[in-house]
Amino acid sequence: MRASEILIHKRDGGILSTEQLRFLIHGYLDGSIPEYQISAWLMAVYFQGMNEDETGVLTREMIASGDTIMLGPGVRPYVDKHSTGGVGDKVSLILAPLAAACGVAVPMMSGRALGHTGGTLDKLDSIPGYQSVLAPERFAAIVAEVGFAMTGQSERIVPADRKLYALRDVTATVESIPLITASILSKKFAEGAEALVMDVKCGSGAFMKTPEAARKLAEALVRTGASLDREVVAVLTRMDEPLGAMVGNFLEVEESCRVLAAAETPALVFDQPAFSDRRLADLLEVTLHLTAWMIVLGGKARDHRAALDLAHARLIDGSAYRAFCANVEAQGGSVADLEAGLGVRRAPVVHELRTECGGVVHEIDAYRIGMAGVDLGVGRNRAEDSVEPHVGLELLVKRGERVEPNTPLCRLYATNETAMAAAIARTAGAFVIGGAEAGGAVPQSSSWIIEELHELE
Amino acid sequence: MRASEILIHKRDGGILSTEQLRFLIHGYLDGSIPEYQISAWLMAVYFQGMNEDETGVLTREMIASGDTIMLGPGVRPYVDKHSTGGVGDKVSLILAPLAAACGVAVPMMSGRALGHTGGTLDKLDSIPGYQSVLAPERFAAIVAEVGFAMTGQSERIVPADRKLYALRDVTATVESIPLITASILSKKFAEGAEALVMDVKCGSGAFMKTPEAARKLAEALVRTGASLDREVVAVLTRMDEPLGAMVGNFLEVEESCRVLAAAETPALVFDQPAFSDRRLADLLEVTLHLTAWMIVLGGKARDHRAALDLAHARLIDGSAYRAFCANVEAQGGSVADLEAGLGVRRAPVVHELRTECGGVVHEIDAYRIGMAGVDLGVGRNRAEDSVEPHVGLELLVKRGERVEPNTPLCRLYATNETAMAAAIARTAGAFVIGGAEAGGAVPQSSSWIIEELHELE
Repeated sequence: MRASEILIHKRDGGILSTEQLRFLIHGYLDGSIPEYQISAWLMAVYFQGMNEDETGVLTREMIASGDTIMLGPGVRPYVDKHSTGGVGDKVSLILAPLAAACGVAVPMMSGRALGHTGGTLDKLDSIPGYQSVLAPERFAAIVAEVGFAMTGQSERIVPADRKLYALRDVTATVESIPLITASILSKKFAEGAEALVMDVKCGSGAFMKTPEAARKLAEALVRTGASLDREVVAVLTRMDEPLGAMVGNFLEVEESCRVLAAAETPALVFDQPAFSDRRLADLLEVTLHLTAWMIVLGGKARDHRAALDLAHARLIDGSAYRAFCANVEAQGGSVADLEAGLGVRRAPVVHELRTECGGVVHEIDAYRIGMAGVDLGVGRNRAEDSVEPHVGLELLVKRGERVEPNTPLCRLYATNETAMAAAIARTAGAFVIGGAEAGGAVPQSSSWIIEELHELE
Repeated sequence: MRASEILIHKRDGGILSTEQLRFLIHGYLDGSIPEYQISAWLMAVYFQGMNEDETGVLTREMIASGDTIMLGPGVRPYVDKHSTGGVGDKVSLILAPLAAACGVAVPMMSGRALGHTGGTLDKLDSIPGYQSVLAPERFAAIVAEVGFAMTGQSERIVPADRKLYALRDVTATVESIPLITASILSKKFAEGAEALVMDVKCGSGAFMKTPEAARKLAEALVRTGASLDREVVAVLTRMDEPLGAMVGNFLEVEESCRVLAAAETPALVFDQPAFSDRRLADLLEVTLHLTAWMIVLGGKARDHRAALDLAHARLIDGSAYRAFCANVEAQGGSVADLEAGLGVRRAPVVHELRTECGGVVHEIDAYRIGMAGVDLGVGRNRAEDSVEPHVGLELLVKRGERVEPNTPLCRLYATNETAMAAAIARTAGAFVIGGAEAGGAVPQSSSWIIEELHELE
């Protein structure tokens, strides 16, 4: 077998066999196939694609490149959730304990903030004492004990993905649906997940800007999952404005606690059919919807409607918050210390951005808000940068709201004036406010769920 | 400027600027841009192409990567011919001295046999004493003195092409029109050619199998030439059966001498409108047609028709053969030794292949004949293989001829029985002979010139 012949085959639109893909990946990892052939193959895949079986084989080979976490014969199947990344996306912080409270075992492996998108690990690290990186044995033990555990990708899991991603990053081949699919699924399945709920975000603050692009990725994820005999449900959700009100690390932990502790904090209980704080309507809908799919895949409800009811009940009765607290303690954090900081721990430099003119909030550009977060230190431009726990911003209005002149739009928290100045400039451009004539009526979104894909033909 | 951004731009169908292309090529040559980015760029170019200005810039940058031959202020412009490669293609051996005899200065740089296609340098090397690789100064001196000189590509001319070609060869990016165009033109222009006649061969024995593919390359060559202010004429010629009767190294030198010495060997003079030997009709038409374009580009005739008359006259009056002999002597060969070998120097193992059944010769597959040549040692499979001077085959019939059962089809010359056996098996499959019912009438081709491109809009 020769690498150049495999490249010709893919370049000309052919389907690669299991042996050919294995030859390429093994050769890449053991150094017998040079990077210049792999990068040419990646570019050919960018143009010619891969079908679900090819993507499945690639996923399997990537998993085989490293260790896999064995979670033991506990509550099966193990179900995880993954998001393509968004702004203000604290869904995992609520969904994992809520699904666990509903009896689903959730081994969750998350990432760090990069560019305008936030990272669950960075959020968890803002909890005093919390250990967001666990040894595989400890990770498995916490899943068994608490029902869910949170960790980051270890160096020893799917090393092929790290190597391949680094090459894709410098060869203009990141934006390939089958390569993205194999990257996501290999990590999730190597970490012990047996079924997966995918949150494919779509809009200005998402990796996928259009529903068409998001649907293609969603389809590839579901079909490749099926090719690997794993159930994958993909839900397309809106990411045009930040999810919820908070964008920050500790700020988002705080917002998650507000949702989880709703039953115990009377001011925050459900005001049916949504929370009294309408800024959280999108967060709640998306989180409950995804959690319900976790419950269905975990076999704890007969259908999505029943699962939604179950999730709702476990949120109201406080068991989700108790699962969250149990996890915080199990992963080395202090619940008392965390609760003492809620609403209190804020970076010192504060600014309230107000609108000059009145009108309707047409747009709160999630990408710009995310980049303002980077200015403040919520996220990072480069993987080696560090982040700040207590900076960020709180949206005081959401899309579709009518505002008077001089209404506060959002509150920013920074560690210093320089960062604040940059973030203010960026945030100001994120809000588009106009009269009815400037773009017509902006109806409030009736739903943040665009579409869901499951068991495709 | 970052290489990965340039890759994204080309991947997405953008046009690269002069600065971007320069950055890539310089970075590749000085090692600051790794090969894995260049190979990804090559694959993106394979899919997205390059326009004539991009191809022109690439050509210019490749020329600038090495030395250029300065030919001095002699007979201008210097005109060269290049062929995309065929079987039995000895056009250069006749065209160069004929154009020189018509007053055109021809600095000809040729290649070696590879795969089924022959190489002019290997043919010249079969002339006793002939030095086919010349130092630049000697090359320039012989062009000035004899009117033409023949040499191979030096290591110091267009090193970027050698480096890039080696990478393309292993990354499935050889078959890209703009990359082929830049490779051809950079070598030709660096070697001193100021105008170029391109023989774009088309058919089973050619790199381009269809007229459509050949036309695309021809157009790119003419347009890129114009973008570089160089006149390029591209002629599409048939390469379905071998050109002329001989396929071999010394055998093709011999056939070229037969054509050039026609006037002095009465049995071989023109039998108007073609030679008396109808097996040479295609060779003569293609050679005279291309030579006439050399004469037009060299400014020695007002139009192609007048140029054809001039070429004809210089062939008949023996001046082309005299130019050929002067070149042989100037490049270290012995004309007496060469002439003594004509019709005599043959590899020892001889076989005559005959047809069992009678009928019309529908096809003589040039690719198979070329590969039989490789079996015999005319050409080589790998660049490092050596070739044999006196092996090869002589076609005794050509396409469209009617043959009786047991008619000899071709004569093979080998150095040993093993090579002969392989070549016979291959050659037998090249001839397709049938009755009128097996494919209808096969009209003799009226012309081997398919189309010509010059001064495109």
